[in-house]
Amino acid sequence: MTTVKDISEQGLLKVLHRFCPTEVVGDDAAIVPIQPHKSLVVTTDTLVDGVHFSDRTTSPEDVGWRSAAANLSDLAAMGAFPIGITIALGLTGDTPVTWVEKLYQGISECLQPYNTPIVGGDIVRSPIRTISITAFGQIEPSQTILRSNCQPQNAIVVTGVHGASKAGLELLLHPELGEFLTEAERSSLILDHQRPRPRLDLLTNLWNCLSLNSSNSVEKNQNSVLVGGMDSSDGLADAIVQMCQASQVGAKIDRNQIPIPSSLTKLVSPEQALKWALYGGEDFELVLCLPPICGQELVKKIGVGAAIVGTTTDDTDILLIDSQGIYPNEQLTLSQAFQHF
Amino acid sequence: MTTVKDISEQGLLKVLHRFCPTEVVGDDAAIVPIQPHKSLVVTTDTLVDGVHFSDRTTSPEDVGWRSAAANLSDLAAMGAFPIGITIALGLTGDTPVTWVEKLYQGISECLQPYNTPIVGGDIVRSPIRTISITAFGQIEPSQTILRSNCQPQNAIVVTGVHGASKAGLELLLHPELGEFLTEAERSSLILDHQRPRPRLDLLTNLWNCLSLNSSNSVEKNQNSVLVGGMDSSDGLADAIVQMCQASQVGAKIDRNQIPIPSSLTKLVSPEQALKWALYGGEDFELVLCLPPICGQELVKKIGVGAAIVGTTTDDTDILLIDSQGIYPNEQLTLSQAFQHF
Repeated sequence: MTTVKDISEQGLLKVLHRFCPTEVVGDDAAIVPIQPHKSLVVTTDTLVDGVHFSDRTTSPEDVGWRSAAANLSDLAAMGAFPIGITIALGLTGDTPVTWVEKLYQGISECLQPYNTPIVGGDIVRSPIRTISITAFGQIEPSQTILRSNCQPQNAIVVTGVHGASKAGLELLLHPELGEFLTEAERSSLILDHQRPRPRLDLLTNLWNCLSLNSSNSVEKNQNSVLVGGMDSSDGLADAIVQMCQASQVGAKIDRNQIPIPSSLTKLVSPEQALKWALYGGEDFELVLCLPPICGQELVKKIGVGAAIVGTTTDDTDILLIDSQGIYPNEQLTLSQAFQHF
Repeated sequence: MTTVKDISEQGLLKVLHRFCPTEVVGDDAAIVPIQPHKSLVVTTDTLVDGVHFSDRTTSPEDVGWRSAAANLSDLAAMGAFPIGITIALGLTGDTPVTWVEKLYQGISECLQPYNTPIVGGDIVRSPIRTISITAFGQIEPSQTILRSNCQPQNAIVVTGVHGASKAGLELLLHPELGEFLTEAERSSLILDHQRPRPRLDLLTNLWNCLSLNSSNSVEKNQNSVLVGGMDSSDGLADAIVQMCQASQVGAKIDRNQIPIPSSLTKLVSPEQALKWALYGGEDFELVLCLPPICGQELVKKIGVGAAIVGTTTDDTDILLIDSQGIYPNEQLTLSQAFQHF
């Protein structure tokens, strides 16, 4: 099998340039047009072999897809539309050239629906494989989503089901867990883990809902509708707590309103399924804080999976409550969330 | 000594956020304003412990400086002014927190003259330390420098001396080499290696020279003055060959015109000094192809170190010639240049 050591850096670049628009690669840096009066939005994300992925459990295409998806999801969480990415690869000399090609293939597949080009990168020798993707987007400054934009009495909207990615991972690690699932349920959960979709698709809906409601209301002008939000890549609970802390608000989350795929009840207990939804992470949905009327409209527009899971409050308690009165209130904290070191 | 494992990711982020403007960090992505009608320019560069740096020979401050300088030099080579960088770090758990702080300190010192903020990044656990910096700049589209912009009969301008970085490295590895140098000469060469300066300072001069000459000439309009160029980070010979190949021109380089620090003759033979200048790499100067009259003016403006080293031709030979007629012509090629794998 041909390795990167066999074909030299120039040879490898030739292979990879096939994935890039010819007019932007081959110089010291890449030029990306940006529309006048838009701001630039940038985010970066690194994956390390053995820490964030492994050849044993993940194909290079899926590593590429997830790595691109994580970056695009960060852009979506700011309200930004992507305009390009760069890829910095650390490669061991014995890395097969086909591995690198498949990685780029997965990245390209993820980017394709958003017409987002790979505009450049860097390839270096490394004793361990690493992938750093930096994504650039553009944003209309008045349509910026920030974690610190949440207001008390906002509806807390989640844009899709949670817990699916964690369930997919568990199914890959322990196939026997899925004995009561249909084949469609099993592969759907695994796909949710391997090929998460950044929720760039709903930004247009979001701003439509907001402008509709602000123009209907005489007391408001459009600029006063702030949208708080982030993505749920580190878990739904983590997202809610981070946003509340950044905005200095509290929250009441109803455990019965958290959208969980019905197939999860065939895998684990309802308590465990809720835990996966809150703390499993990597669902890459958006968690948004909006005026309730906008929240309702957005959930209707998005359809299946989207839900209002609670409201923000003007104290600082972040509570998981039970509208059916069976479970006692619980404090949501960061402590159970993913720690990177 | 406190390590990154001891203080958790949140603790480390708190330390590093001191180096970033408070208004841009803490969300899923960073927002960077860009001036209307400018294009975005992006470049990325990765350093790996044991491959590109080592604690034995390089302080973390110098690793940070060089890594930032390499990226800013790529922007300068496109004609772009920096507006921000992101930093993706892979860290071993036992990395001292002070090491990471010093790395950021060196990066900040390099960025400071250009008012360029660190706008974000990513920190992940890794079995080996890695640093990926992505730099963003903005450019007036008509003032873009491309490798493929060289025209036959251009003056080939280098913006400073070559060979100094390689000499500094050799002095660090073999201090005994420098026995005939003064202390000032020794530390100047070492500084050239440890703290290379991206040549962003001369872009304004460059466009002034060009607009002056195009407005003096009735046959030309400003847009017709194309500037070919790249930086000499992979060596002066590599830069010249890459540009000639991208522009489909040839070149005649006069070995007597290549600016080499005089102290190098106290270190090695003139032949060896020329080799270091052509193939040593990491001098981070710009190599520019311009109409001769602009080239002369630019060299005068830059002053010490800058020189016209040759001219482009309309064949495809890339020759090192000797205007004094002692050495035979040599073909310059990429083959002696730095190979990353």
